[in-house]
Amino acid sequence: MCEASAYVITEEEPVLLMDFVDKVLPDEAGIRLINIFGDQKIIKGKIHSLSLVDHRIYIEENKS
Amino acid sequence: MCEASAYVITEEEPVLLMDFVDKVLPDEAGIRLINIFGDQKIIKGKIHSLSLVDHRIYIEENKS
Repeated sequence: MCEASAYVITEEEPVLLMDFVDKVLPDEAGIRLINIFGDQKIIKGKIHSLSLVDHRIYIEENKS
Repeated sequence: MCEASAYVITEEEPVLLMDFVDKVLPDEAGIRLINIFGDQKIIKGKIHSLSLVDHRIYIEENKS
């Protein structure tokens, strides 16, 4: 399985937001993350970068 | 290995842009894709969605 872990970038270490992420759906409201179990989270922000071989999604949170 | 294939969304079928994508780096200019061989492509557009279990990245190209 090639799901990834989603992290929020902070000034210090990236903070884990969700494991086993399958779907990532950016829209006007933010980024919807759906894991392989069907759990969902929405975070206000944008995709900073993906590092798929490392199974990592980095998200930059909106400060406002 | 958990690299993915990047597709551009079109009105018909998605069109393959790059296989074996590792890094995806969105910035002002567009989206930089880097595959596991170090090849790079930049496409003007934004990430439409990710489907990681299917190893797929969908990109929406800027029309302008």
